[in-house]
Amino acid sequence: MKKIALILSGCGVYDGSEIHETVLTMLAIEQHGAAYRCFAPNMTQHHVINHHTGEVSENESRNVLVESARIARGDVEDLNDLHVDEFDALIVPGGFGAAKNLCNFAIDGDNYTINEHVLAAGKAFAQAEKPAGYMCIAPALLPLIYPKGIQGTIGTDTGTANLIAAKGLAHCESPVDEVVIDPAHKVVTTPAYMLATSISEAAVGINRLVKSVIALIE
Amino acid sequence: MKKIALILSGCGVYDGSEIHETVLTMLAIEQHGAAYRCFAPNMTQHHVINHHTGEVSENESRNVLVESARIARGDVEDLNDLHVDEFDALIVPGGFGAAKNLCNFAIDGDNYTINEHVLAAGKAFAQAEKPAGYMCIAPALLPLIYPKGIQGTIGTDTGTANLIAAKGLAHCESPVDEVVIDPAHKVVTTPAYMLATSISEAAVGINRLVKSVIALIE
Repeated sequence: MKKIALILSGCGVYDGSEIHETVLTMLAIEQHGAAYRCFAPNMTQHHVINHHTGEVSENESRNVLVESARIARGDVEDLNDLHVDEFDALIVPGGFGAAKNLCNFAIDGDNYTINEHVLAAGKAFAQAEKPAGYMCIAPALLPLIYPKGIQGTIGTDTGTANLIAAKGLAHCESPVDEVVIDPAHKVVTTPAYMLATSISEAAVGINRLVKSVIALIE
Repeated sequence: MKKIALILSGCGVYDGSEIHETVLTMLAIEQHGAAYRCFAPNMTQHHVINHHTGEVSENESRNVLVESARIARGDVEDLNDLHVDEFDALIVPGGFGAAKNLCNFAIDGDNYTINEHVLAAGKAFAQAEKPAGYMCIAPALLPLIYPKGIQGTIGTDTGTANLIAAKGLAHCESPVDEVVIDPAHKVVTTPAYMLATSISEAAVGINRLVKSVIALIE
């Protein structure tokens, strides 16, 4: 059975992994006959957002690994324990956690950097020539992991795309139900909730991403 | 378009709504051509569980409505604002939140009681003869809402079933991929993660529950 590692970034669209994207990815992986294990960096979240009000929850602090465990039903491992030889592919769901915890794109779009453990994991899959899927805003990580010119999409938001392109992403616009594939680097991207207006709309592109990633496994 | 109200109980299997069950319900509702809105009681959670260690997180307090907003991408309303005339059906996902926040079955199984706002909402759908779906451990709520003899399932756990049966549930054993329907009361139940060992397994019964609830709408 093909095995896919997921890197989570917390639990909730505004400060962690986008929950629908993560769950839809898990479902699609199993429905395509593969299996997944979840990983997350053991670090303090950039901040906590009250998802009901949209405001920063001052005086509150949460851990990315601990909150990611909520989506994984407890079954999440420290990202430091991700060994590329145990997996056939990598998938990184979106949500602001990908842009606040895995890297700091949401805080400093002009000059953002990537978490060292996320970099190590991403590079390990790239160097092993194993496929990877990045959805929603997670493709912001790509130019920090892959060589300049890596192809990917975050949908159609020109301002966001330009910031990531300045780091080296060759951005390709994509509708919500499509994927962009960089065949040389075996990287698949889809806009998901960068464009989706409903869960069923997000599911179409995410299913396609998972199917495409699995098809790229040799 | 048929409209379904969801009652959430937080965000995470051990102290809130089971995330997979909730997301799979949302997806199935849209894929069956209906729409949903999310509601949750505005109250402090019974407690917070660190989902990575499984331990109670002492000194931490979270609000059910605020945490439920994470699964709902911010779009959740106070349960007090649920008006039955705006909906065709009700669905309550499981997770320990249903047994710790919506009622206190997980704390006092022998003599548990239901949150007054959950009771009011559940009774409103029952009295309007509108269908309802309860999954996983949420059927523990049924004998406190419906007359004694209401039929439902929490799977095959005899100890748990006996405690709920003592309150008036006519418990019917069910495998994970099936539903139990009480046609007189238009109530549909399915074991979901009371029995499921994977997300794709949970999805089969949840899809069937959503389809059955929608089919019962007049």
